[in-house]
Amino acid sequence: MELITLAHGAGGSLTGVLIKELFRRHFDNEFLAEAHDSARLPGIAGKLAFTTDSYVIDPLFFPGGNIGKLAVCGTVNDLAMSGARPLYLSCGFIIEEGLPVSLLESVVASMASAAGEAGVLIVAGDTKVVNRGAADKLFVNTSGIGEIPQGIDISGGNAKPGDSVIASGTLGDHGAVILVEREKLGLESPLESDCAPLCGLVADMLEACPDIRVLRDPTRGGAATALNEIAVQSQVGIEIDEETIPVRAAVRGICEILGLDPLYLANEGKLIAIVPAGKTDAVLKAMQSHPYGREAAIIGRVLPEPRGRLVLKTPYGSRRILDIMVSDSLPRIC
Amino acid sequence: MELITLAHGAGGSLTGVLIKELFRRHFDNEFLAEAHDSARLPGIAGKLAFTTDSYVIDPLFFPGGNIGKLAVCGTVNDLAMSGARPLYLSCGFIIEEGLPVSLLESVVASMASAAGEAGVLIVAGDTKVVNRGAADKLFVNTSGIGEIPQGIDISGGNAKPGDSVIASGTLGDHGAVILVEREKLGLESPLESDCAPLCGLVADMLEACPDIRVLRDPTRGGAATALNEIAVQSQVGIEIDEETIPVRAAVRGICEILGLDPLYLANEGKLIAIVPAGKTDAVLKAMQSHPYGREAAIIGRVLPEPRGRLVLKTPYGSRRILDIMVSDSLPRIC
Repeated sequence: MELITLAHGAGGSLTGVLIKELFRRHFDNEFLAEAHDSARLPGIAGKLAFTTDSYVIDPLFFPGGNIGKLAVCGTVNDLAMSGARPLYLSCGFIIEEGLPVSLLESVVASMASAAGEAGVLIVAGDTKVVNRGAADKLFVNTSGIGEIPQGIDISGGNAKPGDSVIASGTLGDHGAVILVEREKLGLESPLESDCAPLCGLVADMLEACPDIRVLRDPTRGGAATALNEIAVQSQVGIEIDEETIPVRAAVRGICEILGLDPLYLANEGKLIAIVPAGKTDAVLKAMQSHPYGREAAIIGRVLPEPRGRLVLKTPYGSRRILDIMVSDSLPRIC
Repeated sequence: MELITLAHGAGGSLTGVLIKELFRRHFDNEFLAEAHDSARLPGIAGKLAFTTDSYVIDPLFFPGGNIGKLAVCGTVNDLAMSGARPLYLSCGFIIEEGLPVSLLESVVASMASAAGEAGVLIVAGDTKVVNRGAADKLFVNTSGIGEIPQGIDISGGNAKPGDSVIASGTLGDHGAVILVEREKLGLESPLESDCAPLCGLVADMLEACPDIRVLRDPTRGGAATALNEIAVQSQVGIEIDEETIPVRAAVRGICEILGLDPLYLANEGKLIAIVPAGKTDAVLKAMQSHPYGREAAIIGRVLPEPRGRLVLKTPYGSRRILDIMVSDSLPRIC
């Protein structure tokens, strides 16, 4: 079994082999093939969206995905949440000496596959190898560029009283899966991470309603943290109804055993949308017609008060404030 | 002394504090202040340049810079080497639990300062914290976007027989400094890393000659590896004259003691330019008038043969092939 050595990251001939036989083979495109210090790409007429994320997830492979798929989907989703059509990604690998080349290749193949599904090109990359013990196996950074079509203005500050809050599907799947893997809970659960690129879903939603106010993918910190941020940025209150929030039975079970709340668990293939009340049905219908939005549901509404706060309405009619997450019970979730 | 905890990377309230009190304070600009999943930036009319690099340098601080300055300069330089005017950077931090917040702040302040000098805005960021032992203190990824002005076509494949090869200054400084620090050689040497943003120098060079064929910053693998890559990409021979290559006496001394060649040591504030013979003097003059090009020198020429090879001409008139670097004696140089 061939292993990654420090020389693979030294910029010399072995780095060249890695680039040619692994990265360029899987990420094949005309821009990457130029092999310059920077990719040279066509200009972008509309507004440009730019984002970055590093991935340090443990374990590297999990039901429903791996760090590579996650890294592509995560950055594609960050672009999509600003209403952008994702175009180009870069990827930076930090590899611990001794990682099997075959493992790296599996990750790279997953990245290529996810990028293909999302319609983005991986046009720039970088590889660093650190000595044994200086990193935990593999970290991946993906940065991304997208184009925001004219007339689209999606921002955390745009929510208005009267708007509806929609979730694209069940919440907490990714967090629950990692929890099960990490804690070796050994449930016979059919759970998979929801990890998926949401740009196609967003395109369909924008076609149904170009006036979507806010989109956010509730990753670290979960839906409760994302909704808190929106409430603060828009200076509105957000009220969600506990009984309408879609949560898989298995996720609910894990949360009950461990004393966690699915609203604070990470999602990697879900989004929260805030839309004008009059467009709610049209957006919901567009979402439910898309594979990644089949279980979409209206989960709440935007109110004038309490400003900057998220309120949970329980099935019994009582209300309580859901705060932003303070500390995470689950580091390295993405 | 406040230390970074896992909660700082969990996406909750402590991540928010870090973003607000550290990153947004130092990197202050209108795009970052939007705090969306992606930065929303004006469109780019010319060709777009896009690049990424991860930095894992050990030690984090060294004479002449630190990992933050290095990360900004390195990515700015990669953009500049494609002839682009650097515009926007993203930064991704992977932090080992327990890192002093004050150390992170020093790094961030250096990044802000280098970005200011280079005229780029840091518009997007991400922070992950991993448990103790899962990373060595701090890794930084910077990705960058630049605009390539119309009419500029700089590429590793453009070198033509007859062209001149220019180095912007002394070679091997960065590599030698890290070597001294790492091996605790304890020389009383006045050596500093050359770490610097080269976009201003490149702008002056392009004003003197828009037809520059190739620009490359010889980082990992040094000048010999960069010139080998150009020779292969352009299918030409490149000949350099040993006695004209600028190398500081201290660097030469360290190399002699350790049996290394300064042509294979990393540089972080130097470039190699290949220019049409008739424009050599104009470009050289422009370089020598810039603070980062004062010691620029013509070091060689492009020949038809031997294709894809770099040849060193010694002061005694003999010639030998300099190969691409195979293995690095010095991992984590950047």
